[in-house]
Amino acid sequence: MKLVTFSVGSGLRVGLTDGEHVADLTARLSTHPRTMIELIERWDDVAGEVRAIGDRDHALADVRLHAPIPRPGKIYALGLNYRQHVAEMGRELPAHQTWFTKPGTAVNGPYDPVQRPKVSEQLDYEVELVVVIGKRCRHVPAEKAQEVIFGYCVGNDVSVRDWQTRTQQFVIGKSFDTHAPFGPWIETSDGVDAGDLDLRLLVNGEERQHSNTRDMIFDCAAQVADLSTAMTLEPGDVIFTGTPSGVAAGMRPPRWLKAGDRVRAEISGIGHIEALVVDEVAEIHAPE
Amino acid sequence: MKLVTFSVGSGLRVGLTDGEHVADLTARLSTHPRTMIELIERWDDVAGEVRAIGDRDHALADVRLHAPIPRPGKIYALGLNYRQHVAEMGRELPAHQTWFTKPGTAVNGPYDPVQRPKVSEQLDYEVELVVVIGKRCRHVPAEKAQEVIFGYCVGNDVSVRDWQTRTQQFVIGKSFDTHAPFGPWIETSDGVDAGDLDLRLLVNGEERQHSNTRDMIFDCAAQVADLSTAMTLEPGDVIFTGTPSGVAAGMRPPRWLKAGDRVRAEISGIGHIEALVVDEVAEIHAPE
Repeated sequence: MKLVTFSVGSGLRVGLTDGEHVADLTARLSTHPRTMIELIERWDDVAGEVRAIGDRDHALADVRLHAPIPRPGKIYALGLNYRQHVAEMGRELPAHQTWFTKPGTAVNGPYDPVQRPKVSEQLDYEVELVVVIGKRCRHVPAEKAQEVIFGYCVGNDVSVRDWQTRTQQFVIGKSFDTHAPFGPWIETSDGVDAGDLDLRLLVNGEERQHSNTRDMIFDCAAQVADLSTAMTLEPGDVIFTGTPSGVAAGMRPPRWLKAGDRVRAEISGIGHIEALVVDEVAEIHAPE
Repeated sequence: MKLVTFSVGSGLRVGLTDGEHVADLTARLSTHPRTMIELIERWDDVAGEVRAIGDRDHALADVRLHAPIPRPGKIYALGLNYRQHVAEMGRELPAHQTWFTKPGTAVNGPYDPVQRPKVSEQLDYEVELVVVIGKRCRHVPAEKAQEVIFGYCVGNDVSVRDWQTRTQQFVIGKSFDTHAPFGPWIETSDGVDAGDLDLRLLVNGEERQHSNTRDMIFDCAAQVADLSTAMTLEPGDVIFTGTPSGVAAGMRPPRWLKAGDRVRAEISGIGHIEALVVDEVAEIHAPE
């Protein structure tokens, strides 16, 4: 099943889509979920009701899709997790999972513009399989991780490379506004074999990344196990699971993203997201 | 003014305290703020009303204090920001601010127990001045940063050193449940000179850290400026501004925290927080 967060006019709603139409779950479900996190929290109670819905309220083309979870409780992201990407970045195969984070303010809709910040020319892309957590959990062994994974999305871990590497800590270079687009929907986990998915990223139609989740060093289950050793995961938490080779930073010379570029990230069996790159909007929130 | 998040029985409320009594702002204010973030968002409208409150609803000793912001939108934390701490960790003075994060699930009340995780013996403390953001903002120049800082708390950036250093990325070692205690209240910024505050940390009454915010390499204003270059800051976002020297990791041999230890962090003019260290509770959330 494909679950979306959408709007028609003002206000966000959650819905079910077949890729052509949207059924409004906020209106139709007896629990009237206002957010995707509410829907996920109550999923065991309402999944049957959702499955039975055959109605269509809108054409998909008539609604605006937002990130499926506009404000996740947390976003963890794994660096250096595809063998060929580790090689292109000139690093050794890691013994441990290399975690960093992205903030909620970086979340961006699946088709919304991505901003090139004023302070950097080194804007890069990273297609990633995104895991959405379904249950509050800690200390989940890898063999049970599937039970806490609600579904999957396509993500782009947009990165500002000079800010990422100006200290040893990646975080600030991963934290810019609009740099965590994901979607276009959550494909619930029952329909996905996360261990065998093709990922591609295209810039202006030119393929830059093309791999398969088989090349992951740490698979999704191992990631859930590692993260949940340290912290409680909650419904709607999001994991960006790493990117394959082909990023701009790995090219000589690097071909950074620039305003006007169209960046499309796609994963087989899930869908695609696409962003126009724009120069940062001259919106200054500083107090007068 | 000292603002608290508290409970008497079930349900969180926000309040004003003089250190001995609490006035219930959730009940008394015309806007009936349910959370501290709501109160901060509406602060310009209600500050006068809060200042005029002379009533007392509870003795402070009769309420339970929670972290002033139980679930901040984001928590950024600065590493290597006191000259003597940089020296004890064997590093060079940084040219740039070294950012990492802690998740909302790590937030802990000011007097609640801190858990030593099962997977590590290397539990460490870090007393820190905590900044609370008051206004949605981006691109705030350092000279205007004071206008977006709502107030200050005492924090302990509890750290699991082997997990922090098993890769180059600190994040996972900073992310364990209960490892972001702060409070005991927000001291609003009008009463605080953040550039001249004494910080102390004591373990079982023995002083381990003692410094002054004058030793910061990057002051609070510089931190707000740097963070907001990358991302929009929002009311209730929290910044852990770095720790001075004296951490266990800097000792030979390190004197890690262990169950039964009492860890007290205090900052002049703000207050103190204190935690009993306990072995991780055998609470397994893994699905059955």
